Amino acid sequence: MKRDVYLEDKPLEEAQQEYLAHLAGVGALAPGPSEVIAVEEGAGRVTAAPVYARTSSPHYHAAAMDGVAVRAADTFGASDATPKKLTLGAPAAVVDTGDPLPPECDAVIMIEDVHFIDENVFEITAGAVPWQHVRVIGEDVVATEMIVPANHRLRPVDLGGILAGGLTEIAVHPRPKVALLPTGTELVQPGVPLKPGDIIEYNTRVLGAMVAEWGGSPQRREITVDDYQALKERLEEAVAECDVVLINAGSSAGREDYTAELIGELGRVLTHGVAIKPGKPVVLGEVAGKPVIGVPGYSVSAVLAAELFVKPIIYSKLGAVPPVREKTNAIVSRKIVSPMGTEEFVRVKLGQVGDKIIATAISRGAGVIMSMVRADGILRVPRLSEGYNAGESVTVELMRPLAEVRETTVIIGSHDIALDVLANHLRQKYPFATLSSAHVGSLGGLSALKRGEAHCAGTHLLDEETGDYNVSYIKRLLADQPVVLVNLVYREQGLIVAPGNPHGIRGVEDLAARGLSYINRQRGAGTRILFDFKLKERGIDPDDIKGYEREEYTHMAVAAAVASGSADAGMGIRAAAKALGLDFVPVVEERYDLCIPGIYYDTPYIKRLLEIMIEPAFQKEVQGLGGYDLRDCGKIMYDSRG
Amino acid sequence: MKRDVYLEDKPLEEAQQEYLAHLAGVGALAPGPSEVIAVEEGAGRVTAAPVYARTSSPHYHAAAMDGVAVRAADTFGASDATPKKLTLGAPAAVVDTGDPLPPECDAVIMIEDVHFIDENVFEITAGAVPWQHVRVIGEDVVATEMIVPANHRLRPVDLGGILAGGLTEIAVHPRPKVALLPTGTELVQPGVPLKPGDIIEYNTRVLGAMVAEWGGSPQRREITVDDYQALKERLEEAVAECDVVLINAGSSAGREDYTAELIGELGRVLTHGVAIKPGKPVVLGEVAGKPVIGVPGYSVSAVLAAELFVKPIIYSKLGAVPPVREKTNAIVSRKIVSPMGTEEFVRVKLGQVGDKIIATAISRGAGVIMSMVRADGILRVPRLSEGYNAGESVTVELMRPLAEVRETTVIIGSHDIALDVLANHLRQKYPFATLSSAHVGSLGGLSALKRGEAHCAGTHLLDEETGDYNVSYIKRLLADQPVVLVNLVYREQGLIVAPGNPHGIRGVEDLAARGLSYINRQRGAGTRILFDFKLKERGIDPDDIKGYEREEYTHMAVAAAVASGSADAGMGIRAAAKALGLDFVPVVEERYDLCIPGIYYDTPYIKRLLEIMIEPAFQKEVQGLGGYDLRDCGKIMYDSRG
Repeated sequence: MKRDVYLEDKPLEEAQQEYLAHLAGVGALAPGPSEVIAVEEGAGRVTAAPVYARTSSPHYHAAAMDGVAVRAADTFGASDATPKKLTLGAPAAVVDTGDPLPPECDAVIMIEDVHFIDENVFEITAGAVPWQHVRVIGEDVVATEMIVPANHRLRPVDLGGILAGGLTEIAVHPRPKVALLPTGTELVQPGVPLKPGDIIEYNTRVLGAMVAEWGGSPQRREITVDDYQALKERLEEAVAECDVVLINAGSSAGREDYTAELIGELGRVLTHGVAIKPGKPVVLGEVAGKPVIGVPGYSVSAVLAAELFVKPIIYSKLGAVPPVREKTNAIVSRKIVSPMGTEEFVRVKLGQVGDKIIATAISRGAGVIMSMVRADGILRVPRLSEGYNAGESVTVELMRPLAEVRETTVIIGSHDIALDVLANHLRQKYPFATLSSAHVGSLGGLSALKRGEAHCAGTHLLDEETGDYNVSYIKRLLADQPVVLVNLVYREQGLIVAPGNPHGIRGVEDLAARGLSYINRQRGAGTRILFDFKLKERGIDPDDIKGYEREEYTHMAVAAAVASGSADAGMGIRAAAKALGLDFVPVVEERYDLCIPGIYYDTPYIKRLLEIMIEPAFQKEVQGLGGYDLRDCGKIMYDSRG
Repeated sequence: MKRDVYLEDKPLEEAQQEYLAHLAGVGALAPGPSEVIAVEEGAGRVTAAPVYARTSSPHYHAAAMDGVAVRAADTFGASDATPKKLTLGAPAAVVDTGDPLPPECDAVIMIEDVHFIDENVFEITAGAVPWQHVRVIGEDVVATEMIVPANHRLRPVDLGGILAGGLTEIAVHPRPKVALLPTGTELVQPGVPLKPGDIIEYNTRVLGAMVAEWGGSPQRREITVDDYQALKERLEEAVAECDVVLINAGSSAGREDYTAELIGELGRVLTHGVAIKPGKPVVLGEVAGKPVIGVPGYSVSAVLAAELFVKPIIYSKLGAVPPVREKTNAIVSRKIVSPMGTEEFVRVKLGQVGDKIIATAISRGAGVIMSMVRADGILRVPRLSEGYNAGESVTVELMRPLAEVRETTVIIGSHDIALDVLANHLRQKYPFATLSSAHVGSLGGLSALKRGEAHCAGTHLLDEETGDYNVSYIKRLLADQPVVLVNLVYREQGLIVAPGNPHGIRGVEDLAARGLSYINRQRGAGTRILFDFKLKERGIDPDDIKGYEREEYTHMAVAAAVASGSADAGMGIRAAAKALGLDFVPVVEERYDLCIPGIYYDTPYIKRLLEIMIEPAFQKEVQGLGGYDLRDCGKIMYDSRG
């Protein structure tokens, strides 16, 4: 059981430069032989040669106005005092915009300035300057002039310039063909019923869409099982037919990770392992003068590896350079710890709160594609940094336009599924607006408000003494900040248990007594506080709860743990249980409010939400989730403004 | 001969708001019935409904590392001092990343931390925390969770999230069908031999590419001649089949401009004439609940009208809002005068010179599509402004990325065709770099350097007293600025005349003597100075030269004027005559240099040019143009640095 378990740890820049230099050396970065296409199919393509006009535009002297074409010399001396009469046909003629000037005419008088006395005779009260209101030959394009240079990505207006110059075809760089080889015995096509161990093969679909976006032509192949000989044949085929080959995955150093060995056998491996996270187990190779890259199997790693190593190749083969991602400054909301020696690509949510843009890290798992779906930007933590403290200023690469980030309502705090419904209704009513929610628990949300990092916080904090919700916490934690507390929902909290409740759980007291395994929420979550309160009420020591230390951040994650059998019970809302077809043992009805700082209460960030909360369509959808009561939805429960 | 020659002059914002409000009122802005497509075809499409996960991902507890799956409880107590031996199969098992955890296992120990004693027995020196290195069910996506909301434009990573959530199909908004009706008896298809009066029908190709870029589906129709009944049938057909109809052109108030009348007959005209330039004669109408827009015939007007009135409709029908164009601050290099009462869209070239971005207006003709091709940005002059003075700070909407603008070498001054060749070689060697040249004549170029608006200036200024070129002008005009003067070419200047030189012109003296018509260059152009010098030498009064007051800005424009017969002769370079198949009467060989301020001489802006100028490929191409001598190309002719 010997394995080569160690990968290189090459710094990113070194790996990139060395690889691109090698590829340039073997000619693998140059565009392929140009192809000739119809100009009107050219949008988005890149010119392979400068485009020179064949004809001038206009190719004749054209009237630039509706009016009468005249010989300017015939009009000299006309004035209000001494109007001049001219006759059509000598050589004057009525012309419309675009008409050719009749022979001998060299000016046009606008129709508004002409007074017809009869059908043939007209009067003017001002002389015409030669060539006035005339588009002379070549005003737009002169024959032989360069319309666009080589290596120019054609925009719609360029097609106009080229067609105006008399061309109907142009030479463009071919789209680089990129073979996408999904490999792995565990892979199944989307839509196939899943068995444990099956992995839906979606990476090559994502990579394919990326390649197409960059201007390449993705060539997705069938799934190859982990068989060295089969992989070898597929790779040889792909190298023969395509310009670039991506093998996904098998790029690490596991028992069935053949990619590096294979590339080494058929060609050359330049790097196996780059000091980035995610994305470390990448293989940068070359076979027969073509780039062959072993892309890691984890979805986020795959996307990042493609961005860092494949994108520059595609652009180079199109005679272009990748566009630079827009950047923004932002303030880190929560401490980000990152390993020294590795450049980390942290996905962040962004939102403008007051005059600052706030960046909050989201899941860092290499296999969490949803972290890319949800991300507004990427924060690079350099190789020699250990991360950032809360409040530190950083530069973030944007994954969506800054203008959209600026229209985002930032809600940080407790999670409730009704927020997803709210987010969706918001987007449907205001297509430019987004509700971005970060789930850090109720107390975390109030702290975020205190630090000025959110427009509002979702909170359901029980005051054990009064039995009331939220107000006592707000008075204590946000004493110097006027806020408005608006109810979103009342909801049932209880124990989420397996279908049919096989352990016959009746309440929290059964968990300790019967040694059942529990899945907890994170510290500061209202649900955890509620659970602790219930334990205390019944005199149960948390140490007697098996799994008390296992924490999840959302109701759905708790429900998923129960659904999978990894826990017998977890506290959460009924809607989460219902969503996954689980049973639910009600414990309490609690109040879930939105806590809104006074300074944001009258801004569009909040007004849009309040408007939607009282709409019947929204309320009906939330009620349909189960376990919700909206009797106070939108009602002000507390207001500490002056 | 009665015509309704007056259009409205509605302010842009009013026209836009009124029109969109009307369209919203008749339901013309809502997306059509959603269509279901394969997820992998979804990139760029917009969701018609929120997408909820059907299955969790992972859908089983998966090993997150290559290693050994164990029951964590079995590992407690293991340490360096007290290693623990475990046996495979009880319940431990070797797993690769992605493998399902065997029943009863709840943690994975990395392969690096496992020491195998024999095939079945392994030793560990640290206990495993439950669920370590395990991707629990739903870590990425939890079934029923919202992956993306409605009205979300799908990016490649979103496809990954949706496929991971177990979906293979999604509902998206249909691409709005946009009918493009080219109308006009004068229109001919691209590629057809041209007669005077023919206009190449390229507008609907440009509009079609724009519509496609925005997410619509362009439906280009055949050309319709200017016949009211025929147009009416086409329009009725298009309204029945499509969601939006663009009629191009006939949108003004000329004899054969039927668009407004037609829309009025079949539906309703909301606006005919908007106070914008270019683009005024636009018709905003509605027929049978569908937007019908009369788009002006001039190409720049057409592009602008589509941007302003069609783009918002397409985006709205896709549940989205148009992206905001990136903007930049810039300094106006030359005074821009704009009519009061009209919002003007001035196309500008941009370049970063020192720490300023400089904006220079280019051709303002509504029919000059090349002004859009060449533009780096659009400067909007508001309706109630009369323009900007040189040096004023303005905001410019970018037509190419700021990063590219920053890599642009700005050359302002005299025009020479060798500069086009240089621009093209530059782009081929450095795909990210651009050479942007503005043609204001030699003196204009030196003034631009004085004002800090260019990286270099092309100049060929004859010192009448010494017979030398450029140096005396530089000493006088740029006395306090160290510069380097580098030769680009020697070139023949002479009279460009019709093929066969029908008037037998031998030199400038023949022009006055024989009353021939001349086409001049603008004030400050080296060629004009040369012409004036030659007139003076021969004692000719400029007033005796017919056409002396008619000015063009480039050699090619002069040649075009001669080619068209609008002038008998014009002074220019041999290459311009050769390009258009004209004859050439040599007058003098002159020196054309690049004048480079010392502060830019060692920057990449200039170094890249100097590097290319000495390459044989560049020199060979310039020599092929005719009339050039490159004996000193790249040589320093003068250097006033310390």
